[in-house]
Amino acid sequence: MAAMAALFLKTPTPSHSFPKTHKTLFAPALNLSLPPLPNPKTRRATRIVASALIDPDGGKLVDLVSEPAKREAKKREALSLPKIKLTRIDLEWVHVLSEGWASPLAGFMRESEFLQTLHFNALRLGDGSVVNMSLPIVLAIDDSQKDRIGGSGSVALVDSGDNPVAILSNIEIYKHNKEERIARTWGTTAPGLPYAEEAITKSGNWLIGGDLEVLERIKYHDGLDRFRLSPAELREEFTRRNADAVFAFQLRNPVHNGHALLMTDTRRHLLEMGYKNPILLLHPLGGYTKADDVPLSWRMKQHEKVLEDGVLDPETTVVSIFPSPMHYAGPTEVQWHAKARINAGANFYIVGRDPAGMSHPVEKRDLYDADHGKKVLSMAPGLERLNILPFKVAAYDKTQSKMAFFDPSRPQEFLFISGTKMRTLAKNRENPPDGFMCPGGWEVLVDYYDSLTPVGNGRVPDLVPA
Amino acid sequence: MAAMAALFLKTPTPSHSFPKTHKTLFAPALNLSLPPLPNPKTRRATRIVASALIDPDGGKLVDLVSEPAKREAKKREALSLPKIKLTRIDLEWVHVLSEGWASPLAGFMRESEFLQTLHFNALRLGDGSVVNMSLPIVLAIDDSQKDRIGGSGSVALVDSGDNPVAILSNIEIYKHNKEERIARTWGTTAPGLPYAEEAITKSGNWLIGGDLEVLERIKYHDGLDRFRLSPAELREEFTRRNADAVFAFQLRNPVHNGHALLMTDTRRHLLEMGYKNPILLLHPLGGYTKADDVPLSWRMKQHEKVLEDGVLDPETTVVSIFPSPMHYAGPTEVQWHAKARINAGANFYIVGRDPAGMSHPVEKRDLYDADHGKKVLSMAPGLERLNILPFKVAAYDKTQSKMAFFDPSRPQEFLFISGTKMRTLAKNRENPPDGFMCPGGWEVLVDYYDSLTPVGNGRVPDLVPA
Repeated sequence: MAAMAALFLKTPTPSHSFPKTHKTLFAPALNLSLPPLPNPKTRRATRIVASALIDPDGGKLVDLVSEPAKREAKKREALSLPKIKLTRIDLEWVHVLSEGWASPLAGFMRESEFLQTLHFNALRLGDGSVVNMSLPIVLAIDDSQKDRIGGSGSVALVDSGDNPVAILSNIEIYKHNKEERIARTWGTTAPGLPYAEEAITKSGNWLIGGDLEVLERIKYHDGLDRFRLSPAELREEFTRRNADAVFAFQLRNPVHNGHALLMTDTRRHLLEMGYKNPILLLHPLGGYTKADDVPLSWRMKQHEKVLEDGVLDPETTVVSIFPSPMHYAGPTEVQWHAKARINAGANFYIVGRDPAGMSHPVEKRDLYDADHGKKVLSMAPGLERLNILPFKVAAYDKTQSKMAFFDPSRPQEFLFISGTKMRTLAKNRENPPDGFMCPGGWEVLVDYYDSLTPVGNGRVPDLVPA
Repeated sequence: MAAMAALFLKTPTPSHSFPKTHKTLFAPALNLSLPPLPNPKTRRATRIVASALIDPDGGKLVDLVSEPAKREAKKREALSLPKIKLTRIDLEWVHVLSEGWASPLAGFMRESEFLQTLHFNALRLGDGSVVNMSLPIVLAIDDSQKDRIGGSGSVALVDSGDNPVAILSNIEIYKHNKEERIARTWGTTAPGLPYAEEAITKSGNWLIGGDLEVLERIKYHDGLDRFRLSPAELREEFTRRNADAVFAFQLRNPVHNGHALLMTDTRRHLLEMGYKNPILLLHPLGGYTKADDVPLSWRMKQHEKVLEDGVLDPETTVVSIFPSPMHYAGPTEVQWHAKARINAGANFYIVGRDPAGMSHPVEKRDLYDADHGKKVLSMAPGLERLNILPFKVAAYDKTQSKMAFFDPSRPQEFLFISGTKMRTLAKNRENPPDGFMCPGGWEVLVDYYDSLTPVGNGRVPDLVPA
């Protein structure tokens, strides 16, 4: 299972690290020219310039949002086109694409991109260079939708209320071989893969690719939009802070003190390497997650508490939401998680044990080898520019009553608290050992499980390990 | 299904194209220095030098056969090591590796190579360059074999009679996740994949990788060894013939006149491009094939008849056996088929409809989209140097009573004779239409089906479509 690794936050400063104000919504792509991984040893120790940020994939951040001046005309155009209704997950992908997280991808994949993704986890660009792309970003349609599109070269993508969201043009429709897509993405076709059940198995037999143009920036109006910074906005923020290194931490779980230890330790390590101002991108995933994961709104509350408790330094931490849905596709997905963060300006990526993993949906074992994620990531085409920082294992050190890096010479003094264990404690209103998570953060978790409707005997259902 | 495409042979010359004599058994790797794809337009029209052949992957052909002077010492060493007994398919892979078909791979894959193969269909070399590698070339062992190996750094690989065949050194043992291997290689985990059932599902839970050294060149003593030219020998032969282009045709089925048409047409096309002496490598696969395929010995007889009937020019054709086992893994496997032929000196590769495909083992459909093979091949990492020649569709033209390229303007005048149809005709001793296959070749097929032991009602069992 994807063990809830370990996160903690230690600097005794009140949190202001959630960006409260919005800068330009449609920040232009930064024009970066310095090499992506400057050697800090040879760099002048003076003020670091913005151009030290790593280049986006393909050299330029994709921005697929209509210019405001053209928006009305585009809306009218959309109303004249055949319509495709987007599911929630489709909309999340529209969001991802529109802001350039998948740069240089400029729309839902056509067949050549889909095949390269499935077979090579990478796309070859016109100039012969290669960018990583491990997850298919595709839009499924059914036979009747395909019939309705007929010979049209463009379609309108509409939300659940039939409001036009985007236009897909120069479309290509091709077969959706679901079994092959699932097998090559997950390395299994066992029933019960959450994303597959939610978004693939029941979806249409065709995929439609094309160039995407989004009418307005995607918003969810759930109180969390202010945390959803685009790659361009994140780059602006890192530049404003004079970051000379950005290290990204992907998470989809509550933050505990092992995580915090790791983040603090990573910063220390980067300072030792000679970087002057490494900035942490604490980047919870905000799209679709499986039913037994803690929902985004509760996780954000928990992260906020953890930061208020002063474990991470707001001066060197940016917390933002990564809008992608979750596949739980282990070594295949971790590449996507890393690649998207390059586009947001990160040149260091922290990878844990069994990233994006879960239990096998049918057999009694983890779906992926816990070490494959970091191994695959370190060898992945198109990620050569990214520094992979493997996660040291943190566990609860009973002799110190706190989370610490595991010391294999005295294993009996450490306690491993899995995600499952943690959730079981929280739902039963029990406390974890002191020092596992800050009390404010733990409270949020307990509140979350309290908020679930009890079933039958008044207890919440057992949780699937994750 | 992988339709038996269409092959025919038309030049009225008696066949001498099977190489009858052996040159050096352990031909050294050629030292090639010219660019792999010289532009024939700009080349001098004089005698082409050997160095015009495409470079092997990694720059140098791997040769893993012990030097004769060291053989006895190696044998003694092997006798002192823990033993692993090779299956027939394992031995075929030892053969493939030992002669450098998988260059630069120098032994059974270690985990990093296995993972790169599964996820990226390519291996990154020390210098940052990339070679294609789409099929795992791995050796499975079970728990008790692993226990017996203990801490030994080397093992002896022995044949069914316990005779040492090779030494595997600097070994690495890692988990064999069969489900993941099958899913990522075939894009399905449906039961009934021939290679998976034969060589994976029942095999051990561990894989053992390492550096391979083969004591003596692998021979099968089946009367066909003389046709098994190594990549080095093939390169020598192409050099002797002053080839300035080598086009490879992979097949695992009897040759019919549609195939021949295609090969003849390809040569014409290459001459038009400006090549002076394109040589055809007609390269039947000689390793494991599924039970309902025509066995190698019968196919070789059939190919010989077809050549005797004078359809291909022996001056410009080399027939040899490709020792690899067959996976039937479609777009994944066709990359291996192409990559191995680069190592044998081919710079053009003919790819047909649904290469290495078969029917879905459970559902009533082809396992792969018929066009995916050539699409994937044309985009595959590490194959950029290879010219892919897509197969034109040939069918039986009823107006001409011969195989011809299909003309979509008059579809009703063409007859498609599938592999299944062809085999059904042969096993029922019926004749195909005149001009589908030369009579001598057809006779061999009929003889083959006659040789099968009849069951029950005296008829051979129904054949699975392929």
